[in-house]
Amino acid sequence: MAHASPTRTVEEHRDEILALVSTLPAVTLPLARCLGLTLHEDLVARLPAPPFTNSSMDGFAVRAADVAGASAERPVELPVTGDQPAGPAAASALAPGTAIRIMTGAPLPDGADAVVPVEQTDQPRGAAPLPPAVRVVEPVAAGAYVRHRGEGVPVGAPVMPAGTRLGPAALAAAGAVGYGELSVVRRPRLAVVSTGDELAAPGDALGGGTIPDSNLAMLVALATEWGADVPLAERVGDDPEVLDAVLSRAAEVADLVVTCGGISAGAFEVVRQALESPEVRFVQVAMQPGKPQGLGVLTGGPHRPVPVVALPGNPVSSFVGFRVYVRPALARLAGRDPLGETLTVQVRAAEAWRSPSGRRQYAPVRLEAPERPGEPYLARPTHRLGSASHLVGSLHLAHALAVVPAEVTQVEAGQALPAVPLPPWSPELPDQVVPAPR
Amino acid sequence: MAHASPTRTVEEHRDEILALVSTLPAVTLPLARCLGLTLHEDLVARLPAPPFTNSSMDGFAVRAADVAGASAERPVELPVTGDQPAGPAAASALAPGTAIRIMTGAPLPDGADAVVPVEQTDQPRGAAPLPPAVRVVEPVAAGAYVRHRGEGVPVGAPVMPAGTRLGPAALAAAGAVGYGELSVVRRPRLAVVSTGDELAAPGDALGGGTIPDSNLAMLVALATEWGADVPLAERVGDDPEVLDAVLSRAAEVADLVVTCGGISAGAFEVVRQALESPEVRFVQVAMQPGKPQGLGVLTGGPHRPVPVVALPGNPVSSFVGFRVYVRPALARLAGRDPLGETLTVQVRAAEAWRSPSGRRQYAPVRLEAPERPGEPYLARPTHRLGSASHLVGSLHLAHALAVVPAEVTQVEAGQALPAVPLPPWSPELPDQVVPAPR
Repeated sequence: MAHASPTRTVEEHRDEILALVSTLPAVTLPLARCLGLTLHEDLVARLPAPPFTNSSMDGFAVRAADVAGASAERPVELPVTGDQPAGPAAASALAPGTAIRIMTGAPLPDGADAVVPVEQTDQPRGAAPLPPAVRVVEPVAAGAYVRHRGEGVPVGAPVMPAGTRLGPAALAAAGAVGYGELSVVRRPRLAVVSTGDELAAPGDALGGGTIPDSNLAMLVALATEWGADVPLAERVGDDPEVLDAVLSRAAEVADLVVTCGGISAGAFEVVRQALESPEVRFVQVAMQPGKPQGLGVLTGGPHRPVPVVALPGNPVSSFVGFRVYVRPALARLAGRDPLGETLTVQVRAAEAWRSPSGRRQYAPVRLEAPERPGEPYLARPTHRLGSASHLVGSLHLAHALAVVPAEVTQVEAGQALPAVPLPPWSPELPDQVVPAPR
Repeated sequence: MAHASPTRTVEEHRDEILALVSTLPAVTLPLARCLGLTLHEDLVARLPAPPFTNSSMDGFAVRAADVAGASAERPVELPVTGDQPAGPAAASALAPGTAIRIMTGAPLPDGADAVVPVEQTDQPRGAAPLPPAVRVVEPVAAGAYVRHRGEGVPVGAPVMPAGTRLGPAALAAAGAVGYGELSVVRRPRLAVVSTGDELAAPGDALGGGTIPDSNLAMLVALATEWGADVPLAERVGDDPEVLDAVLSRAAEVADLVVTCGGISAGAFEVVRQALESPEVRFVQVAMQPGKPQGLGVLTGGPHRPVPVVALPGNPVSSFVGFRVYVRPALARLAGRDPLGETLTVQVRAAEAWRSPSGRRQYAPVRLEAPERPGEPYLARPTHRLGSASHLVGSLHLAHALAVVPAEVTQVEAGQALPAVPLPPWSPELPDQVVPAPR
């Protein structure tokens, strides 16, 4: 009889992969190169924000007391003694009973305690010669339109903790509090190797039993979309020695290697043949698509040991495998919580579909608006055949992967399910209802 | 009295900017370089998927009729006449009453009409010598585990329409149906120029009235995050001739130029001084932050006219301006619906805050889980002072920009508001409730 291999759960497999990876070292990079990377150290303000007391409006710096009774009928006229433009010049000094013309962001002159916006005076907005005097038609309170040094962030205040993923606004904040470069965890490098004699380069003419290699470009794109560098992306046939040589090169340039193909139950499986060893195991996972999976460490060359994840050859299987296994590994390499990037949404099945017994199904689904706002959205499999592994032609229509528990063999219309949203390359990205903070 | 400038709505300003940009030309690129770009032509299958009739399992190709009565007690034994591995070899021929060992993806031998999975035989999974015979313990229906040529996608079938933004799964689909390269709209190039004598490079020591330039790195990151190239990113002071020269260079290398700073109501506004003309207008928009805005076309050099968007100098203002004005312009340049990427979610204010009369407020907010699932999430301004323009230190904590209508001056706790979610660089990205498809 055929041998039954013990199957593991998705979580068991994922956790075993995560145990093979650890956070990469830190590097120091200029702000603009830090997009998407993770802070290695807590960021505390080196500078206060704002760094000096300044005006938040264009207008005239005054002492509030000097314009206390101003009105349109009885304006207060003050002599204007100079300009305080935004710029490197230090603050000038304001004599009582006078005004200094001031621009947004300019340092508040010593002796001033408020700014009268130009709209509350007789002066025009914009470029104009410095007037000898200004008529103020409305009083201002002390402190009006003044931003005090450090009122946003005092020196030494914590701004962002280590582990923060740096987006554009975070880069602005870091700059504002005195940083031109940051200590960040190095960007992960992912090597991708697609395997199989049956593979032809996409666009090439096919002969006999060849098929286009849909995986290589897809996996490179998945890695790039996530934010990894891809220093090696190659296609090999079924010669284990050739694969060994490519994997050796991959291990020299990458922090994680992903292969696809050559791991199934067939008689000739090149990745198994090349790699099966105490260091690299081939297993079965109770999931569909993606029952055959592999993991381990590439050793034996001049390179340091490098983790390897061996995905199935079918593109829908490798797509799901990348989502479930490779993204968390990349997150850990990058210094972040590996499960922190696994979003789930609640959906309801739009129609019935089958799911294999004993295997958790990740079904590519398209989302549709519910009948009534506030209800969960409806999930429709992107192909009537569900997530059957060969359906690469419709995968791009999916907004999410619906997750069907292993014990369910028939999803009923209306059944509640969790789903994993896919990054927003999906067509017709739907409006997002509000996310639930963790 | 001060002059009141007529203000325009956000939509009026945005639409005027959009009128300045048109879709870029198409280029042909290899699949892996197309990530995030837009299909210029409808994609129709050049190859069928699958491209030949093949096996979806590892096992034995048979005639279903030959194993019709098989059971564990009375297996059907068939002589095995050869292997059909996945690979470039063409399909062999199956004589009636025999079996051919077959692998997933291998072409189905002529004369076979089904595959018996290896688990339904007496053979082991995986690599093993070719057996002389196989015992089948369970029948299969005709067509079992067979994927027919073209059953996924027939030749000529439409696969993706022009205007599709290409994600990883779309690249796999394109490869599967015969494309190694695609005709896509060229990637937009955005030049960024930050202006102001008061600006020091982030990390540099500050003197007098200088502040760190928070904008340049942030705007470069916003553009990169969106998917644009940034061929020029420079900081200039308040000399209009220097700015002119930089803008001239920017116009030679970019499809759109974005400046920040130098456009407000102050006496010395370099961007206004350099650019105000019939071709470049400075206006006021009924929004906060971001009342002062500019737009137009850079002309007069050897370069072709290039649109320019002039944003305010305050980083929160320029962040909001990028979202509201630049992203739609980039989408149009890239061949997509400019408003198709404007997502909104419904939220409720977590607390009260003020909003300026007559101006639509875009308030950076952090989202919190509602009391009861299915209710809108709660939006809390990232700083108690609301979206006051200088609050760059807390902007990175925002999950979204809550949009407060112009006529509202006080947002009450519990008030329903739309919000624009920010791309997922936000810390602790919340779980996404299901998006509403458009």
